[in-house]
Amino acid sequence: MAQKKILSLLAMERIMKEAGAYRVGEDAKEALRDALEHIGEQISKEANELSRHARRSTIKAEDIKLAARQQK
Amino acid sequence: MAQKKILSLLAMERIMKEAGAYRVGEDAKEALRDALEHIGEQISKEANELSRHARRSTIKAEDIKLAARQQK
Repeated sequence: MAQKKILSLLAMERIMKEAGAYRVGEDAKEALRDALEHIGEQISKEANELSRHARRSTIKAEDIKLAARQQK
Repeated sequence: MAQKKILSLLAMERIMKEAGAYRVGEDAKEALRDALEHIGEQISKEANELSRHARRSTIKAEDIKLAARQQK
């Protein structure tokens, strides 16, 4: 899922400001979006497998939490 | 940054669907939002330090990319 541009750049700026950023370049917002979409995809794929492992067709919070914990 | 609710649940659903999810529970969208906001905060804090290390006051894409690579 390279460059899907699902997350908004405004949201990326807010996350960085909340984390204590003083000034944020436009390219940094795009880089954070790319990184989080990639990580979100990895977590989702793992959660999908975990839900099937539990013989469910619906992904639940427990699948996401377990997948996020395993995320490298 | 626990439960900042900056990212939209619709975006979380889209990321999961793109990753191949068939059905997605509402609680799973909230769990993915929490996970990605937490990871986004960790990357942003690290990027902030990296920008200061490079004697800049603006976070650039290179800071985010390096911080994301170091993300555990």
